[in-house]
Amino acid sequence: MQKLSVAQARQTESIGQQVTLQGWVRTRRDSKAGFSFLELNDGSSMANIQVIADGELENYETEIKHITAGCSVGVEGTIRESPGKGQATEVQAERVILYGTADAESYPLQKKRHSFEFLRTIAHLRPRTNTFGAVARVRNCVCNSIHQFFQENGFLYIHTPVITASDCEGAGEMFQVTTLDLNGPPKAEGKVDFAQDFFDRPSYLTVSGQLEAETFACALGKVYTFGPTFRAENSNTSRHLAEFWMVEPEMAFFELTDNMDLAEQFLKRIFKDVLARCPEDMEFFNLRIDKTTLETLQGIVDSEFVRLTYTEAVKLLEASGESFEFPVNWGVDLQAEHERYLTEKHFQKPVILYDYPRTIKPFYMRLNDDEKTVRAMDVLVPKVGEIIGGSQREERLDVLEMRMAEQDLVAEDYWWYLDLRRYGSVPHAGFGLGLERVVQFITGMANIRDVIPFPRTPGNAEF
Amino acid sequence: MQKLSVAQARQTESIGQQVTLQGWVRTRRDSKAGFSFLELNDGSSMANIQVIADGELENYETEIKHITAGCSVGVEGTIRESPGKGQATEVQAERVILYGTADAESYPLQKKRHSFEFLRTIAHLRPRTNTFGAVARVRNCVCNSIHQFFQENGFLYIHTPVITASDCEGAGEMFQVTTLDLNGPPKAEGKVDFAQDFFDRPSYLTVSGQLEAETFACALGKVYTFGPTFRAENSNTSRHLAEFWMVEPEMAFFELTDNMDLAEQFLKRIFKDVLARCPEDMEFFNLRIDKTTLETLQGIVDSEFVRLTYTEAVKLLEASGESFEFPVNWGVDLQAEHERYLTEKHFQKPVILYDYPRTIKPFYMRLNDDEKTVRAMDVLVPKVGEIIGGSQREERLDVLEMRMAEQDLVAEDYWWYLDLRRYGSVPHAGFGLGLERVVQFITGMANIRDVIPFPRTPGNAEF
Repeated sequence: MQKLSVAQARQTESIGQQVTLQGWVRTRRDSKAGFSFLELNDGSSMANIQVIADGELENYETEIKHITAGCSVGVEGTIRESPGKGQATEVQAERVILYGTADAESYPLQKKRHSFEFLRTIAHLRPRTNTFGAVARVRNCVCNSIHQFFQENGFLYIHTPVITASDCEGAGEMFQVTTLDLNGPPKAEGKVDFAQDFFDRPSYLTVSGQLEAETFACALGKVYTFGPTFRAENSNTSRHLAEFWMVEPEMAFFELTDNMDLAEQFLKRIFKDVLARCPEDMEFFNLRIDKTTLETLQGIVDSEFVRLTYTEAVKLLEASGESFEFPVNWGVDLQAEHERYLTEKHFQKPVILYDYPRTIKPFYMRLNDDEKTVRAMDVLVPKVGEIIGGSQREERLDVLEMRMAEQDLVAEDYWWYLDLRRYGSVPHAGFGLGLERVVQFITGMANIRDVIPFPRTPGNAEF
Repeated sequence: MQKLSVAQARQTESIGQQVTLQGWVRTRRDSKAGFSFLELNDGSSMANIQVIADGELENYETEIKHITAGCSVGVEGTIRESPGKGQATEVQAERVILYGTADAESYPLQKKRHSFEFLRTIAHLRPRTNTFGAVARVRNCVCNSIHQFFQENGFLYIHTPVITASDCEGAGEMFQVTTLDLNGPPKAEGKVDFAQDFFDRPSYLTVSGQLEAETFACALGKVYTFGPTFRAENSNTSRHLAEFWMVEPEMAFFELTDNMDLAEQFLKRIFKDVLARCPEDMEFFNLRIDKTTLETLQGIVDSEFVRLTYTEAVKLLEASGESFEFPVNWGVDLQAEHERYLTEKHFQKPVILYDYPRTIKPFYMRLNDDEKTVRAMDVLVPKVGEIIGGSQREERLDVLEMRMAEQDLVAEDYWWYLDLRRYGSVPHAGFGLGLERVVQFITGMANIRDVIPFPRTPGNAEF
């Protein structure tokens, strides 16, 4: 007998087929006429399929009538048109196999609505709920769009290292990786002797694959990374994770305008795909989580992003008459409240800010001729503010060295990064997008811990 | 003027177009007739395109005649039919822009053949060579096939955590992750006080996402992970990395035979795609690195995998008359020499061995009714031996607990894993494929350090 997914079985084209379905029962309801309805879900879609289990089935009294939420079953039967509303099809069971029970007393997922806080404590079971099933499907859809977008545009997927000894930039917020016995590490001259550690030196978890991605862009043209990234930041907020996934495209021969064009196409592609490919899940988020999300996403897909310089933005903010918590003047880093004013109130669409003050941006961003600003760009969207950050990279060796000295970085630590400017240097650019921020934005989920399977935050590394 | 990649410009359809090309010069050759040939590469293909730079160009004497290997240039010109052999097209330059020079004295990549050992010391420049450019393209192709295969078959891509406090199984070979100051960690009762570490307990880098992937399979059906995995194993071999990428599909309602079918389809798809999508790169590997690779891959695509039990395999090996370094008898773990004998000599095609002794396999593999073997499977291919390992998982709570006790594992550490068997347990199965092993197999590269951008091995975490 043909195995179908619930999503397939819900299509009218499946009517008349003899099939096997397998999944988990969400609810059982008994009719007074002596049969039962089982709502079956297998993760292939938000919606369940209704199974009609007749009283005549051989295990009806012994098993079927005792099925509770969470039980796993196989159903052999015929798909037919459903007389009920809200569903095109249903299954008339000829056989119901009970695989696994779920004791109604102890099973943590009961029919009532559970808080997201509670569900975080059972992260191994929460994908069985409507909300977390939908998050998993949307997250998968976004990941797939990301790969498709870059592959279709001639990018190579590159794996930059997770463990690194050379990523000095973010040292304060890095996790150390070691095989030394912390209770009695080997010492040399009174200090831990890292020459005896696995990598013969202190090593850390990466905060970004950008610098390594640049080495591949400066050899092969257009590349992207998509991997886990880490921040040992003691932030207990709804927007921070210690471990998250980041996408970082890096393109040789791209200047800032090309970078902006790519970022705009990229975001639109992701949002367009999720609207087209996950309509049921997105309806659910729009209904239950954030009533503006469909409208916001469609608005972004249809809009042309505004592009203006940091300097123009500061003028607008100063003239806005808004009372911001953090005052604005040229030279300060913009806060979420400023970014949101621009994208939500003033322009009411996505905004790409560029040419930021050199003093607030990293050493690798290309210095403008005014010597006051660098070729940075941030893409701002409603509700969130910055969703993408990027820049044209400094390709001139002397300027790069000067900028490194200015930020007290030791050139020798970056010998290989500087080599890219010594040998066949090219204009190039790139940006970074945090996967969880995008999934959060799309779904409207309030806490970032609810859009990643097993969130890592201060004090949390369970599962 | 339209920007084209070198790969596009090499197509005959591009003849007659006015284009801009950008890339790196591999060689310059001057004609006595007063013009120069530049071999240009931009990473889009193995092959270069030939650029003809006339002596009349304004920067011919000042710049073009000084171009050396590794210089980056932009070329504006017309694509025309090439009179030379081995190439359909060439570019008549109307303008050559020199972006970056590469001092011939100090540029480490000279025209001569460099050893792979040397190139590992300049991992930031090696993608500029033919071999490492080809490896990057093949690796990208494999990754793309992996995602396409699973997405087309209804799998959800799941990110299992990199940092974990609960992965007790491989503790001996795990990297510890910490934010404590190793030179003076806080102590409690004379021991390091991990309650003050970032995650309030000792935490590690994952050795496998399988257990976490099972939680999603047991909710959503078919899922896969594809992410970095770590082993703090002090192995300095051509087959081991401390950090590598692993693919782990996990499927609810799959038994061992379904698992075998999937693994066979999956491998064939990867090999078929790489043959179809990277023909030039694969020709190169077949010519320069391993003269059997095209034949081997095509052979696998066309073959039906042999399936036999471990017990049958041991009988075959015992009867083979071969003198193995490690003697074979029922109960021992098979060595590469045994696996290779079966796949290369005896069957001359891929072999799936299954039903291994319970004593040599992990606790989570499903116990057979004979109580001596478990539903494990290994896929063996020529040259390499095992390329995929997997199993049907033990879905019976009591049997799983018994197996854990047998292997001295503490049930409380796995409370959430056991919950999957307490509530709606289902038959399920999965397997793991090491990305680098596959890329090594496809390309024939002898050392695994040469198929990952920045290899991490004992003593090596540079870049």
